[in-house]
Amino acid sequence: MTDENQNGPSRRAFLTGAGAVAAGTLAGKASAQDDPAIAIKPWMQELGDGVDVSPYGMPSPYEEDVKRRTVEWLTADPVSSINFTPIHALDGTITPNGICFERHHSGVAKVDPAEHRLMINGLVDRELVFTMEDLMRFPRENHVYFLECAANSGMEWRGSQLNGVQFTHGMIHNVQYTGIPLRLLLEEAGVQAEGKWLLAEGADAAGMSRSIPMEKALDDCLVAFKMNGEALRPEQGYPVRLVVPGWEGNMWVKWLRRLEVGDQPWHHREETSKYTDLLDDGTARRFTWEMDAKSVVTSPSPQAPITHGPGPTVLTGLAWSGRGTIPRVDVTIDGGITWHEARMSGPSTPKALHRFYYDFEWDGSPLLVQSRAHDSTGYVQPTKDQLREMRGLNSIYHNNGIQTWAVDADGKAENVEIS
Amino acid sequence: MTDENQNGPSRRAFLTGAGAVAAGTLAGKASAQDDPAIAIKPWMQELGDGVDVSPYGMPSPYEEDVKRRTVEWLTADPVSSINFTPIHALDGTITPNGICFERHHSGVAKVDPAEHRLMINGLVDRELVFTMEDLMRFPRENHVYFLECAANSGMEWRGSQLNGVQFTHGMIHNVQYTGIPLRLLLEEAGVQAEGKWLLAEGADAAGMSRSIPMEKALDDCLVAFKMNGEALRPEQGYPVRLVVPGWEGNMWVKWLRRLEVGDQPWHHREETSKYTDLLDDGTARRFTWEMDAKSVVTSPSPQAPITHGPGPTVLTGLAWSGRGTIPRVDVTIDGGITWHEARMSGPSTPKALHRFYYDFEWDGSPLLVQSRAHDSTGYVQPTKDQLREMRGLNSIYHNNGIQTWAVDADGKAENVEIS
Repeated sequence: MTDENQNGPSRRAFLTGAGAVAAGTLAGKASAQDDPAIAIKPWMQELGDGVDVSPYGMPSPYEEDVKRRTVEWLTADPVSSINFTPIHALDGTITPNGICFERHHSGVAKVDPAEHRLMINGLVDRELVFTMEDLMRFPRENHVYFLECAANSGMEWRGSQLNGVQFTHGMIHNVQYTGIPLRLLLEEAGVQAEGKWLLAEGADAAGMSRSIPMEKALDDCLVAFKMNGEALRPEQGYPVRLVVPGWEGNMWVKWLRRLEVGDQPWHHREETSKYTDLLDDGTARRFTWEMDAKSVVTSPSPQAPITHGPGPTVLTGLAWSGRGTIPRVDVTIDGGITWHEARMSGPSTPKALHRFYYDFEWDGSPLLVQSRAHDSTGYVQPTKDQLREMRGLNSIYHNNGIQTWAVDADGKAENVEIS
Repeated sequence: MTDENQNGPSRRAFLTGAGAVAAGTLAGKASAQDDPAIAIKPWMQELGDGVDVSPYGMPSPYEEDVKRRTVEWLTADPVSSINFTPIHALDGTITPNGICFERHHSGVAKVDPAEHRLMINGLVDRELVFTMEDLMRFPRENHVYFLECAANSGMEWRGSQLNGVQFTHGMIHNVQYTGIPLRLLLEEAGVQAEGKWLLAEGADAAGMSRSIPMEKALDDCLVAFKMNGEALRPEQGYPVRLVVPGWEGNMWVKWLRRLEVGDQPWHHREETSKYTDLLDDGTARRFTWEMDAKSVVTSPSPQAPITHGPGPTVLTGLAWSGRGTIPRVDVTIDGGITWHEARMSGPSTPKALHRFYYDFEWDGSPLLVQSRAHDSTGYVQPTKDQLREMRGLNSIYHNNGIQTWAVDADGKAENVEIS
């Protein structure tokens, strides 16, 4: 299940296999400084801009390709719009705020925080209305969580369709939230004994709303106002959103304006005609909130081909589970004949993205690349065919099946299915 | 040393002390929906922008004040320019890439990654030149580290001068780096037995360079190419910088172009006339690389006053140590007469920022606010007077003394010193 390659290429392997200009190239020259590969560049001869030009900085112009992207047929109308995180171009585990995927049901609400209010009503001892300043007086916590849209990978139920991990798996992001435990606000209002459900409602024109069981609301939900240290971005619910760790992204209500306590779920659109899973027999799975363990190789992938020849190669990807941590990811490069335990690097906290690597010697032959996550409950990521066998072909949501990329001898990668 | 307030205001305390519109306000109305405080707002009645307008998003216009700022007399010339992280407005532990402080010695080098090279030369078995693509073939790791300029708080040696924590303590940021252990690149080149020092040199016009002992180079240094998941920002060394965990920021050479192995330090400008600490007797402390344990209250502070009346109040701040983690921070609001153990929330990893809170009932009287960090080695943050007693008044660098804010009855805060 493991192999020696996972500890990285040996020094000898790198020198014989890869493209670095080594001793030989420099031989016979007075010093390495004479080599044209390391000649003095223009930017070493001119004074750059000072710090006064960038009160809020942006990426290098050379990185302009690292951006959120839409799929035209999915995003024709702001009433139902999606774009995708460029996970093929990222590394580590944190998603930068500017490129966290977006999914809106009536576009981005432009909320003035001074005018915004959060109300708690329904089966409570005291109905309450909070200004943002009121909320800032409650104790806060900091937690990193992934947010995955239930429809992430949904277009792949009936076979491989989208040629890029940004599109197949990019409805996910992972940021550090600062927020108030929802429990504290509910305690402030005083939840009555028959209060078993919570309706969370947004201040967008869709009035996006979802029913949440009280047990989850009192467990680890946050009323969050910061992401990665700064205020929530407008498209992520500025000035305040609900964080529902490990559960489908649609429940993380943005521009949060109201929390109503009730004795049963509300059966709104987003939990009946949408965000339910239609099975072959005509019934629907519903309240499928928890995101199952999942992983995907982000590089190589169709948008991130191997651009060098045989020799030391880094394969990397992301893994996550709505139920806990990811202690282990397996990787195959031969379509599942042999599996290798990947090397994890970075934080391992519950309900957050994990980063894995497989450092191997590529022999230059075509590859069939897959990854398989194991979560801390013992659950193992299934194949797409296993999911289809249980749920039929009607589903859109909750596709956590194993993804395959076919890499050809030139390093180009394609979205394929193998059985 | 601790008190009950640290667990947060009780429900009763919040309702009697704070400004939330509670049951009374809503009494007599058909429902909370009739209250003008929660009337339907314009953004709930109009369709917002779809996702196609923001391939790389920016903060809300209401947050435009959260930006890097300069101090004019410090930043007159790009040859020596500084701006500051707006830590008074942030929370959690991650610093967003766009507002990480900058310090340049000849402005921001505009490096084309395709043309950039990293050379290893000197006392090595093989001189090597790497392209960025070569570097991408080495095993990578992910770590969160703070980067603090040695001159952070330096203007305060001779008394309180700058009225804002952004200016007194804002030469710090904390991001997740993805990079190659420097050890792997040095092993590739083969460090010779007499190679005890490393010179790191940048590709800016200043050719910024620092000497680093080999022991540190082989320990935890990274050659990093990503910050918070995406490519390094230009002002942070795009496409590649050195990460020297826990050590002063000047050593984290940006736009890294050359690593030379030698048998002694180079005694360049940045380790002789600069980045040394002139003592009263005319001698200078040098090679003072490690950043001592430090903390500061970020709110309330001069730029983040208390804007509400008496009652539940959140005090928060940051703590860090170049030697390990921060298991404990003490907070006082009466100038040190009584200390309270702060509540930590968020990750606690070595050489990274930690976030602390003190949730208390403000009685509306003036406060003298301080924080005091303890690190995992047992070191306790000293007072400024203790530092001055040991080092005199000539120093600029390595001021990790306890900071005091005086908060008046209106909630306004000022930078003061008390003995």
